[in-house]
Amino acid sequence: MAGRPKVRKERLDEQAIVDAALKIARKRVSDLTMRAVSDELKVSVGALYKHVVGRDELLALVVEEILGQAPRIHPDASDGWLALRAQVLGIQALMDRYPGLDDAVIAHSPNSPKANELRDEGMTALQHEGLTIDEAHKVYRAVTWLWLGSRAALEGRARRQADIDTFAESLDVLIRGLKSHMEATELVRSTSQELR
Amino acid sequence: MAGRPKVRKERLDEQAIVDAALKIARKRVSDLTMRAVSDELKVSVGALYKHVVGRDELLALVVEEILGQAPRIHPDASDGWLALRAQVLGIQALMDRYPGLDDAVIAHSPNSPKANELRDEGMTALQHEGLTIDEAHKVYRAVTWLWLGSRAALEGRARRQADIDTFAESLDVLIRGLKSHMEATELVRSTSQELR
Repeated sequence: MAGRPKVRKERLDEQAIVDAALKIARKRVSDLTMRAVSDELKVSVGALYKHVVGRDELLALVVEEILGQAPRIHPDASDGWLALRAQVLGIQALMDRYPGLDDAVIAHSPNSPKANELRDEGMTALQHEGLTIDEAHKVYRAVTWLWLGSRAALEGRARRQADIDTFAESLDVLIRGLKSHMEATELVRSTSQELR
Repeated sequence: MAGRPKVRKERLDEQAIVDAALKIARKRVSDLTMRAVSDELKVSVGALYKHVVGRDELLALVVEEILGQAPRIHPDASDGWLALRAQVLGIQALMDRYPGLDDAVIAHSPNSPKANELRDEGMTALQHEGLTIDEAHKVYRAVTWLWLGSRAALEGRARRQADIDTFAESLDVLIRGLKSHMEATELVRSTSQELR
């Protein structure tokens, strides 16, 4: 738009809006309104609406921003199981920084491009460990459930040390168990192929 | 109340209201309104309000009703781990019957007397297996997280066979892993006591 003042154009881009929204919603998601974001950025609500459709879209962008900070799994990770473990613990630590946004992350994850990228990386790492796509999917889901459930149980409060310890311990137990479960399945599979 | 007609008094008790609410909310919780319940029971909304404070209280009562149908753990259960497993699988099957009420059960569980009873039974069963209170609490929480997460991931849709299979498999892996983890801890504990 030719008539738009330069200074506003420079200041008000999507990233600035998302940063402001993240700052506002970090502790309590109900604090996030288009009005609060426009106040924070010292622009009109109308100017904000030129960049984002509304609060729901803004919340989805905030979730993308958070998940964009999650630890990535390198395609050449030497141990896919350990890499998956590190990713999940990293996401947990990340979400601890934004306790007000648990529900938003849970709600938006299924349709989040970033969450999909993270899942694809996890799935690839598991397949490098010899799992079939179905097995990798199963493992990824079980681990995601444990993580999701641990957040849903918080009901918006911050994690205490006991939550953090119990999660790390049960994640280890689950991953170790799934690994030996899948190794046993693989053994059965390869043995039955040899016998053919 | 002396002036209240006998016939209404017999028909309209809390149980009848909860049954009607459960029937209405079973598939979609948003269908549950005080108006819908009064229509179902063919009474006035005012008559309904004499028995329940409002929709939130009614929803809490519905959750109590559902959890009241969960399999109980007998105090003399021969294998506490198996009993816990059966309880969780039973709750999952139970919730499958009321797909619209996932969120309500998740939201109300922390303050639900029935959920507390179920937890106490699970905790007792685990302590009978030699776990300390802290260990039993840890196990119960990990198992609850897996269950909660598996429901939160559904986002209101019904479970498919793949969900059911993956849950049963990962629950088994988690419980088996926690059991041997706790047995190893117990071994360390008893050995260090003997050495003293």
